[in-house]
Amino acid sequence: MGKRVAVVLAGCGVFDGSEIHEASAVLVHLSRGGASVKIFAPNIEQMHVVDHLKGAPTEEKRNVLVESARLARGDIQDLAQLNVKELDAIIIPGGFGVAKNLCSWAVEGKDCSVNEQVKATLQAFHSEGKPIGLCCISPVLAAKVFPGCEVTVGHDKDERSPDVPETACAISQLGCKHVCKNVSESHMDEKNKIVTTCAFMCKAPIHEIFDGIGAMVQDVLKLA
Amino acid sequence: MGKRVAVVLAGCGVFDGSEIHEASAVLVHLSRGGASVKIFAPNIEQMHVVDHLKGAPTEEKRNVLVESARLARGDIQDLAQLNVKELDAIIIPGGFGVAKNLCSWAVEGKDCSVNEQVKATLQAFHSEGKPIGLCCISPVLAAKVFPGCEVTVGHDKDERSPDVPETACAISQLGCKHVCKNVSESHMDEKNKIVTTCAFMCKAPIHEIFDGIGAMVQDVLKLA
Repeated sequence: MGKRVAVVLAGCGVFDGSEIHEASAVLVHLSRGGASVKIFAPNIEQMHVVDHLKGAPTEEKRNVLVESARLARGDIQDLAQLNVKELDAIIIPGGFGVAKNLCSWAVEGKDCSVNEQVKATLQAFHSEGKPIGLCCISPVLAAKVFPGCEVTVGHDKDERSPDVPETACAISQLGCKHVCKNVSESHMDEKNKIVTTCAFMCKAPIHEIFDGIGAMVQDVLKLA
Repeated sequence: MGKRVAVVLAGCGVFDGSEIHEASAVLVHLSRGGASVKIFAPNIEQMHVVDHLKGAPTEEKRNVLVESARLARGDIQDLAQLNVKELDAIIIPGGFGVAKNLCSWAVEGKDCSVNEQVKATLQAFHSEGKPIGLCCISPVLAAKVFPGCEVTVGHDKDERSPDVPETACAISQLGCKHVCKNVSESHMDEKNKIVTTCAFMCKAPIHEIFDGIGAMVQDVLKLA
């Protein structure tokens, strides 16, 4: 039987929601791996709405669950409905929505708080020994919730990707180990069953990001 | 040198814009094929905005170019800026946005009109002998603009996918040839250099749709 995997979204669009191509890649690789997928998002207002053409916030209000439903083609549930007993693993794609709607990393960095529902969900999978897959900026959720864990957000000497050294440094300051990995690789923290890949944290061609997410998804399914 | 390919979007979300996973798959396969990509969308208001959680229209107004920018991570241009001389091929992913914002197929079926900018763009590529790639519902654009062409929207006897027979019938009524193809296959109309695949017109696992779009993209690059 295929593994039952929860995918948790944070909106729809790199600057205020889930990174679209990361979320799509997660779903393609889970499908190829024979997993059955349930998609969730918190039923909360987005921190803000960004006009992705101008790259600037607007006055609009949008809801994280409603916008995430675009990525889920309507087949999505409120994160409050997630039952860890019915699932074997959880994956959270990246995008600024993770750092804005699922936690406050975009504003407060390592001093951020994590949405209580997201935190409780991650803790539930962790305490049941069920794997957690994260990419792009999502590994900061693990760094914040599970001090001492190992994650990657890329190469901390990567000059093409200036956000990586700063994020890697903040992760270290939280008492976690940042492991340098290429975009096509994932890192597995076997003790915590946390699998991470840098995805769009790295300035790489989109097919390499797709492949790196494939490596992460395959490792999550292996651990599940 | 890599082929220069235009990708034209119609918003962001299956029910009122471009189908997100089709658009993402197009970009992943183009990247793997070494193409350089420019993304465009018309600067027009969406026909309507659909709440993808409820599956019902809302009172909101959104702009096709601004919402398409979510899929393009901000790197997008007004379709009015497209210069066919600087490009080798064009691809239009599917989604209801194609049938609502790029033409009026969703309302008028085979009697629809095609957005003038979209029509002129397709005619320009066609008259220069440059290939056109389409998937899901997008092939109706070719059926409307290029009578006599050959396209696929899937299998017209596919009981899992009730929209296919009706769409295939309307395509025939427009004087075009509907060719039955599986979800993982594309059809190439060599005379018109039009390549199509059924994508989400077919109820199939998302990785099969991803692979079918890969077949379409590879054929487009071969013809370019």
